[in-house]
Amino acid sequence: MMKKPDFHFPTLLRKLGRGGPAVTLPKDAGLIIGYTGIGKESRVLELGSGSGFMTVQLANIAKEVVTYEKRDEFLKIAQENVKKAGLENVVFKHQDVLRGINEEDGTYDLVFVDIAEADAMAETASKALKKGGYLAAHCLHSEQAKLLHLVSLKLFSEVFTIEGMVREYEVRDFGFRPAHFGLMHTAYLVIARK
Amino acid sequence: MMKKPDFHFPTLLRKLGRGGPAVTLPKDAGLIIGYTGIGKESRVLELGSGSGFMTVQLANIAKEVVTYEKRDEFLKIAQENVKKAGLENVVFKHQDVLRGINEEDGTYDLVFVDIAEADAMAETASKALKKGGYLAAHCLHSEQAKLLHLVSLKLFSEVFTIEGMVREYEVRDFGFRPAHFGLMHTAYLVIARK
Amino acid sequence: MMKKPDFHFPTLLRKLGRGGPAVTLPKDAGLIIGYTGIGKESRVLELGSGSGFMTVQLANIAKEVVTYEKRDEFLKIAQENVKKAGLENVVFKHQDVLRGINEEDGTYDLVFVDIAEADAMAETASKALKKGGYLAAHCLHSEQAKLLHLVSLKLFSEVFTIEGMVREYEVRDFGFRPAHFGLMHTAYLVIARK
Amino acid sequence: MMKKPDFHFPTLLRKLGRGGPAVTLPKDAGLIIGYTGIGKESRVLELGSGSGFMTVQLANIAKEVVTYEKRDEFLKIAQENVKKAGLENVVFKHQDVLRGINEEDGTYDLVFVDIAEADAMAETASKALKKGGYLAAHCLHSEQAKLLHLVSLKLFSEVFTIEGMVREYEVRDFGFRPAHFGLMHTAYLVIARK
Repeated sequence: MMKKPDFHFPTLLRKLGRGGPAVTLPKDAGLIIGYTGIGKESRVLELGSGSGFMTVQLANIAKEVVTYEKRDEFLKIAQENVKKAGLENVVFKHQDVLRGINEEDGTYDLVFVDIAEADAMAETASKALKKGGYLAAHCLHSEQAKLLHLVSLKLFSEVFTIEGMVREYEVRDFGFRPAHFGLMHTAYLVIARK
Repeated sequence: MMKKPDFHFPTLLRKLGRGGPAVTLPKDAGLIIGYTGIGKESRVLELGSGSGFMTVQLANIAKEVVTYEKRDEFLKIAQENVKKAGLENVVFKHQDVLRGINEEDGTYDLVFVDIAEADAMAETASKALKKGGYLAAHCLHSEQAKLLHLVSLKLFSEVFTIEGMVREYEVRDFGFRPAHFGLMHTAYLVIARK
Repeated sequence: MMKKPDFHFPTLLRKLGRGGPAVTLPKDAGLIIGYTGIGKESRVLELGSGSGFMTVQLANIAKEVVTYEKRDEFLKIAQENVKKAGLENVVFKHQDVLRGINEEDGTYDLVFVDIAEADAMAETASKALKKGGYLAAHCLHSEQAKLLHLVSLKLFSEVFTIEGMVREYEVRDFGFRPAHFGLMHTAYLVIARK
Repeated sequence: MMKKPDFHFPTLLRKLGRGGPAVTLPKDAGLIIGYTGIGKESRVLELGSGSGFMTVQLANIAKEVVTYEKRDEFLKIAQENVKKAGLENVVFKHQDVLRGINEEDGTYDLVFVDIAEADAMAETASKALKKGGYLAAHCLHSEQAKLLHLVSLKLFSEVFTIEGMVREYEVRDFGFRPAHFGLMHTAYLVIARK
């Protein structure tokens, strides 16, 4: 048996509650922020609030976040987590995004998708985005990433799928090397630019 | 011979000029942002502006960035890049940080270090930071990361060194797999929490 | 533009001719040898000789290798390469393995599969192998690996799919770090034990 | 807490006893075999038998292995493991290699070094090797790899340092992706060709 690796949550996330669905870790949140270039003027749409960890990471940076969650129990966790983080720029919508959303108005800088059927949201995302804006999705399985990537090729000007592997090092006076055990995989990230 | 991989600069960075020193790529900028949790209320201090790519990525998110650069030619490139990005929350200081800085006042959320002698700035960084704030450094070589990590252990409550590897996938109807050639390494990232 | 990485062929492979199909590199040949434990007493069956690079790497170790290749031009390259390596323990068969083979006799220690339709050969491989023997396949795409893995679960006692990433380091007095650019992916390896 | 990853020992290694020092895993043994091209005609010298896992993996392939071990308790484990594997082509020497060895005769195809002070054995290895033969070392820490690499540059015609990362995949009908947790690092491998 071995210890779980430390995910190194920033101060921002340490007050939040776990216990819900899998969270988007700082490594993947960071890559999405880096590759899409969102900032304090950005408007962000999130499809699938989950536990609200990504909602918090996005709302901490962006001007405004609109986030959809269909499941009651996740919605409550996410709302509580946003409150614990002291953020007031998040609008929650309790609705299944597969039934359609109201933000297809070309005003968003980033649409972040974190539902299993991410490919089904590509067209909606492309309508919600500004020109030069980004779709980004967190896909657990390669099959999901592939479906979304292929459908996005028809809707976006640029599409790329990446995977971020983060290795932590053990550092001693004599002994700089990666830790033996750790986190090998979290998600495939599909990113598309309108 | 093979093509250089696409670094996938976000829209934000596409207007900027290259030609100066190596830049902090979105992959590493993103990881630093993700692990330190900086946001639109954050005050950031950068030691080593270089080409200004990281300055732009930080200033796009943070409330305010103070950045030091000792070399004339880099300072000019960085200043022009910040201007091209349309950012007005950056203060440039033309000074060698190894001779000391004026921000040791415990008010910063992030001190980002991008100079070869990063370890020499650990104490200064710890004084400049708020409690719960972060030092983050971009170290090309393992030796630099090790020196900084070891000195930071004495000054910070938590220290970790990571490396982010990003692989891009080729995606076809039948053929989901990583690209054969690509970017294997950019930098070691040392992160320390006050 | 950047230089292709050095694949570091061992002395054994330096005399061989390229110019045919993609070759199984030492990194993947080595992993297959390591995980299947073949040695100088082993009998090996190869389905898909290709350029003969893997044939040579296997025959250099094993007692005997039987190898199938359906394409005339590949067969010639493979035969020449085996000759150049000075190996006399290889039997070539000019035949499409999808039409059936004659080695389903439970006497092989390793069946190495290097054809696109690897999953179609799982049953044949399981018949050709001794108890405790291994099927190993070199699959370019994740879809191929998945098909083979899933069918093998029904035929073998243990199945695992791996991927080997090899990074080369640049080493200087001050400057130990991975090379910036290199080989990110060659193949998925599916390994099954009878 | 999480389960230790399965190292996937081949049938060959399953009869062996653990409990001694860290073992050279199939992933690293395989890479060394692949990159050095040893085969059934090869003569191998091992400096540091440890638990004998690598001794067994080498002797299973090579014609002859001479292996040195200074510690009594390791020697016994290694000897027993070689016996359990049924191999009769191994010569054990109970001696500290730092005090010198008797094989500096230019007749070996591979010198495998698995002691902490690997750099101290580079000259000895170069004398023991045939032209075209290889030194290969298993170094836990980057500092050891660096020392050995730098000294080898003066003694060998080609030197390279690599690291092999093996990721295992979870494969389901819908759900091909790397396992979340696993083995991130075992060793740096330094390889030098005479």
